[in-house]
Amino acid sequence: MSKIISISKAAEWLKENDNYLLITHRRPDGDTLGSAGALAEGLRELGKTVYVLKNPEVTPRYASCIGDYLAPDDFLPGFVIAIDTATVDLFAQNALEYKDTVALCIDHHESNTNYAGMLCIDASRSACGELVYDILMEISGEINAKTAECLYVALSTDTGCFSYANTTSDTFAVAARLVEAGAPVARLNKSLFRTKTRGRIKIEGMITSSMEFHFDGKVAIAMITREMMETSGATEDDIDDISNLPVSVEGVGFGITLRELSSPVDCKISCRTVPPYDANALCGKFGGGGHKTAAGATLKKSIDEIKVDLLDILKTEIH
Amino acid sequence: MSKIISISKAAEWLKENDNYLLITHRRPDGDTLGSAGALAEGLRELGKTVYVLKNPEVTPRYASCIGDYLAPDDFLPGFVIAIDTATVDLFAQNALEYKDTVALCIDHHESNTNYAGMLCIDASRSACGELVYDILMEISGEINAKTAECLYVALSTDTGCFSYANTTSDTFAVAARLVEAGAPVARLNKSLFRTKTRGRIKIEGMITSSMEFHFDGKVAIAMITREMMETSGATEDDIDDISNLPVSVEGVGFGITLRELSSPVDCKISCRTVPPYDANALCGKFGGGGHKTAAGATLKKSIDEIKVDLLDILKTEIH
Repeated sequence: MSKIISISKAAEWLKENDNYLLITHRRPDGDTLGSAGALAEGLRELGKTVYVLKNPEVTPRYASCIGDYLAPDDFLPGFVIAIDTATVDLFAQNALEYKDTVALCIDHHESNTNYAGMLCIDASRSACGELVYDILMEISGEINAKTAECLYVALSTDTGCFSYANTTSDTFAVAARLVEAGAPVARLNKSLFRTKTRGRIKIEGMITSSMEFHFDGKVAIAMITREMMETSGATEDDIDDISNLPVSVEGVGFGITLRELSSPVDCKISCRTVPPYDANALCGKFGGGGHKTAAGATLKKSIDEIKVDLLDILKTEIH
Repeated sequence: MSKIISISKAAEWLKENDNYLLITHRRPDGDTLGSAGALAEGLRELGKTVYVLKNPEVTPRYASCIGDYLAPDDFLPGFVIAIDTATVDLFAQNALEYKDTVALCIDHHESNTNYAGMLCIDASRSACGELVYDILMEISGEINAKTAECLYVALSTDTGCFSYANTTSDTFAVAARLVEAGAPVARLNKSLFRTKTRGRIKIEGMITSSMEFHFDGKVAIAMITREMMETSGATEDDIDDISNLPVSVEGVGFGITLRELSSPVDCKISCRTVPPYDANALCGKFGGGGHKTAAGATLKKSIDEIKVDLLDILKTEIH
């Protein structure tokens, strides 16, 4: 069980100690990588020795956040710090050796399993980057442009460029100070939010033009077949957030994405809902689960078979 | 020629006088309507008589910003104030009677033609709403939740939810204070940025799946035929910003949208570029023009004919 510590306690501890290894989570996003890069840069400015453990799944999109701080293979850390990582299940293979000796975890996930010695957590923050910003300001009262850039990546990606429901006045206030401190907002926004790959644009076209609407438009079903993935050349990165698409259509209560995985009878259901509709209850009927507004299930059926079952169940859910 | 006045002068003048009629621009967007609604609400809080002139082109998307302040037909204004309106060409038919007697114009367009008696302008602001915020704070030091909501609409829409290159640290700082003052950020973001109409999703699917790439992906051409508009049921509102789509694809320098208008030989070219490519020069060759990164032209040719001409010209532009 972790000891919960405040921002200022975390700042104090970081100032007092040295030789840190930062760990980011699996399927790394902008928040874990941006927060880790910012903490590494900020602590190095203080003269500390800090590295970020290589993350085998890092994608080109966020690689620059941690590129300058990658730990050499022979680095022997004094203290291990996990960033934005709610459970040890989210540790990559090369991080597992540290799972029982994490000194500090900095996180904003309510689901954090308290696996670290100390836990600096605030689930009301939109991004872990907000916490890292506060910690660095507590330590030295200022951040440099490189730190600001990493933290802008963290904040902006975890809030969908300030459009998700987790965006608060604090998020905007921190963003203002990051831009002041030199975060290149125009360049980052263009590359993170205003650029689509060829593969993404192609598969998005296929998905949207084949999207089905049922029950007076209350249910939208998007399909991603293996053939669509091949024809479009889309990567996993390209379809990362695609399951948010069907529920973004006006009037839709259940937004469902059906995806063929390794074979045509190995499929994944992703469901997003607008309250009061319950994604968790729906996916529970297929042996899956999740949250009320976002849930999933994986099963051995074809897309067409699942669609029949889904529509049959939804008949009673939709009023 | 207008007399340029500061934020505090504008605030002082608004406090001293009364009976205002606010004018918004043609094809009204979130900034002109949100700013007008906010100024009306803020000044009414001070006990002033303020109305917004009906705008015949207002769409459901932004109607609530000004709905509570619409001027009765017999209102005789003491002073007319134009909001976010760079020239009198942007006055709707029912506003033309006031074009020579505008007392004050509050605007952030560099292209403002100085047609008003006084001009409170700052072209470095991302939205006219930033200026209105400053004026209202100068007047009373606080804004209510309704004013904050209108100003959030203004700021967020003019910056593409804080993603466009015009977003500054001031934009974020004002957004933070609007959310603090009660702007319902989650609800507004969901309806403004995370909801697509059925028509929009359909036409987007058609456009993206038929998008053509030429010259190694440096040129992307999107086509919108009259048939696509009919089949999708998309409205003008639905395709409002669609010409930004082709240039958002990775590696594209020239993003071109070709649209059939009233007949198949009545077409519009919209061009968006990434520097150094010059949209204005390209459209100039078709008798149109605009800015370096955004320009257009309208001509009497079919989409297919224009495409041949375009590719021929672009051959020499692309290196």
